Amino acid sequence: MKKFINNPELCEEQMVQGLVKAYPKYVKKLDCGNVIVRANKKENKVALISGGGSGHEPAHAGYVGCGMLDCAVAGAVFTSPTPDQIYEGIKAIATDKGVLMIIKNYSGDIMNFEMAQEMAEMEGIKVAKVVTNDDVAVQNSTWTIGRRGVAGTVFVHKITGAKAETGASLEEVQATAQKVIDNVRTMGVAIRPCTVPAAGVPGFTINEDEMEFGIGIHGEPGVETRKLAPVDEIVDGLLEKILADLDYSSSEVAVMLNSAGATPQMELLIAYNHVADVLAAKGIKVYKSFVGEYMTSLEMDGFSISLLKLDDELKALLDAPADTPAYKA
Amino acid sequence: MKKFINNPELCEEQMVQGLVKAYPKYVKKLDCGNVIVRANKKENKVALISGGGSGHEPAHAGYVGCGMLDCAVAGAVFTSPTPDQIYEGIKAIATDKGVLMIIKNYSGDIMNFEMAQEMAEMEGIKVAKVVTNDDVAVQNSTWTIGRRGVAGTVFVHKITGAKAETGASLEEVQATAQKVIDNVRTMGVAIRPCTVPAAGVPGFTINEDEMEFGIGIHGEPGVETRKLAPVDEIVDGLLEKILADLDYSSSEVAVMLNSAGATPQMELLIAYNHVADVLAAKGIKVYKSFVGEYMTSLEMDGFSISLLKLDDELKALLDAPADTPAYKA
Repeated sequence: MKKFINNPELCEEQMVQGLVKAYPKYVKKLDCGNVIVRANKKENKVALISGGGSGHEPAHAGYVGCGMLDCAVAGAVFTSPTPDQIYEGIKAIATDKGVLMIIKNYSGDIMNFEMAQEMAEMEGIKVAKVVTNDDVAVQNSTWTIGRRGVAGTVFVHKITGAKAETGASLEEVQATAQKVIDNVRTMGVAIRPCTVPAAGVPGFTINEDEMEFGIGIHGEPGVETRKLAPVDEIVDGLLEKILADLDYSSSEVAVMLNSAGATPQMELLIAYNHVADVLAAKGIKVYKSFVGEYMTSLEMDGFSISLLKLDDELKALLDAPADTPAYKA
Repeated sequence: MKKFINNPELCEEQMVQGLVKAYPKYVKKLDCGNVIVRANKKENKVALISGGGSGHEPAHAGYVGCGMLDCAVAGAVFTSPTPDQIYEGIKAIATDKGVLMIIKNYSGDIMNFEMAQEMAEMEGIKVAKVVTNDDVAVQNSTWTIGRRGVAGTVFVHKITGAKAETGASLEEVQATAQKVIDNVRTMGVAIRPCTVPAAGVPGFTINEDEMEFGIGIHGEPGVETRKLAPVDEIVDGLLEKILADLDYSSSEVAVMLNSAGATPQMELLIAYNHVADVLAAKGIKVYKSFVGEYMTSLEMDGFSISLLKLDDELKALLDAPADTPAYKA
C-alpha cells in the first residue's frame, strides 16, 4: 500500500487534526473523537448535522461553516460513526429550534444516527432527520435498503444549510431538505479502485480495458463491469439512467460533476463538456455547475454526475452565501 | 492508457470547452484557440495574463475572474502556448493601464510570452512581465535556467490580481507580483507518475517502496529517488529545504498544501497536520492555509508545500475578494 500516511490506524484522527489546524476560523473538534463543529456556534437557527465514514473528503467536515453544516461526524474510513459520537455532536450544536440530521442512506448510518436521536430526545432536544438516496444505480445494495446516498447529498447540505440560516422552523428546514432529495439523482463510474488504509489492498480488481459502471462511494465495484469507452459514451450511459428516473424535461438543473478522488480536473471537464451538450440537446437548462471533488472515495479514479431539478426556492437557496473550508459561495 | 477522454488529440480543446460551458458567468473562449478571458472585460485596471501548458488544472484558466486573472492561455499538455495565442490574449484584455504577464519559469514559456510581448508592444500596448521561480528543488533544470515556477504561482495570481483591482499602475502591480515571488518557496514529492495523453505512457517508473523527491509539475521524476517514508518524515524533508532557502523566522506565512492531482484529500490533510506542527514549533505563525488542488500535474500522486512570507500589504491582498471558477474568497 503506497500512501502519504503515517499509520493506517491514525489516518482519521490525523486527518481531522489537519483540517482543524488548517481552518481554525471555520471549525473545531470536540474532545470526544472525530466530531467537527463550527468554530463559533450559531444560535436561533435549526442546527444541521451530517457525517458518515471518513474517506469522502471534503465531505462532510469540509462543509461545516456558515450556510451549510453545524456539525460533521467522521467515522473510520467507510464506516459509520458511533451513536455516542453523533450524540455528542447533536448536544454541542443543539438550539431551541432543533437539530436536523442529514443521513446518507446506509443501514449502519441510519441505525447509529437514530440511536443518537433517541439519546438526544431523552434530553429534550428536538431532532428530525432526512435520508439522502440519490444513486440511481441500485434499488437495494449490500449496505442499504433502498438507494444509496451519494454525491447529491452535497446539494442537500448547501440548500438546507441556506434554509436553516433564514431562521426557518425545523419542519420547514426538513421539508426543504426533502425537496432536494426528491429532485436529485446521481450515477457514477470508475476505472481504478481505492485502498482503505486499514485493509491495505484495493477494494476490487479491474482489467486495463474495463470500467465499473454504477459505483457507490465506499470503494465497492459497480453494478456492472463494462468495456472502457470514450468518455462521451460513458456520459451518455450515466445520463440515460438518470434521465429515465426523473422527469427533467423543460427543467432548470444544477449539475455536479464529482470526482471520485484521483480523476484529473482535465478529464472531469472533458466529461462535463459532453454533459452540457446532451442536456442542451434535450432542452434541459443548466442553471449552475459544479466540477470538482465534492464527495470522494479516497483515491478512486472515477466520477459521478448529479442532476438537481430546481425551482425558484431551490435556486435562491443554492445561490445564498456559504463560507466553509471546502465550499464558498 | 486508461483515462476518461475521447481522443488524446482533443483533450485540451474539449477541456477548455467544458470549462467555458460549466462557468459561462466567469469565462469565455476566444476564437483563436485555447485562450480564456473573463466573460466581461474589466477596464481601468492592469490586465493580468498567465498560462502555460495544459495539465495543471485548475491552473490557469480556473483562476480567470474577478480579483485574479483576466486571461489564461492553454498550450498542449505540459507544452508552452504559442506566441500567437498569447498575443491574441493580450490584445483581448489590454487596457490603458497595460498588461502584466505572469510567467512560470520555463524556457519555452518565457520565449513565447516575450515574443507575444514584442508583437503587442508594436501595436502600442504597454506590457510588463514577472517570472515565478518558487521551486527550491533545483537551481537549474532540463527546461529552465534558474528555478522552476510551480504552485507558488497561484499566490502570485491571487495577490497580484487583488492589487490590479485597486486600479494601481502597471509598475505598482508588477512590484507587488515581484514581492510575492521574492517571498514564496515550494517543494514537492510524488509516489506515482502521470501519463500525458499524447504520449500514452507514464512519465517515469517507480518502485512500490520509493518516492520521487523534488518533483516539478510536468510529470518529470524528482531530483532524487528516496525510500518511501511516513508522511511526517516526508514533510520534514520538504520543509527543511524550504526553510533553509529563505529566512521565515518569526514570520507570518500563508501555506499551500497542493495536490499533484490524484492524492486524496485525507492524505493532504494528514500531511498538513504535520506541517502545522513543525511551523508552530519553529515559531512561524500560519496566517491562512490552502489544502487542495491548485496546480496539478494530471493524475500524478504527490503534493507540494508552498510557504509565502507575508507582510501587511500581502495579507490584505490575500484576503481581498476573488470570484473565479476555482478560487473564491
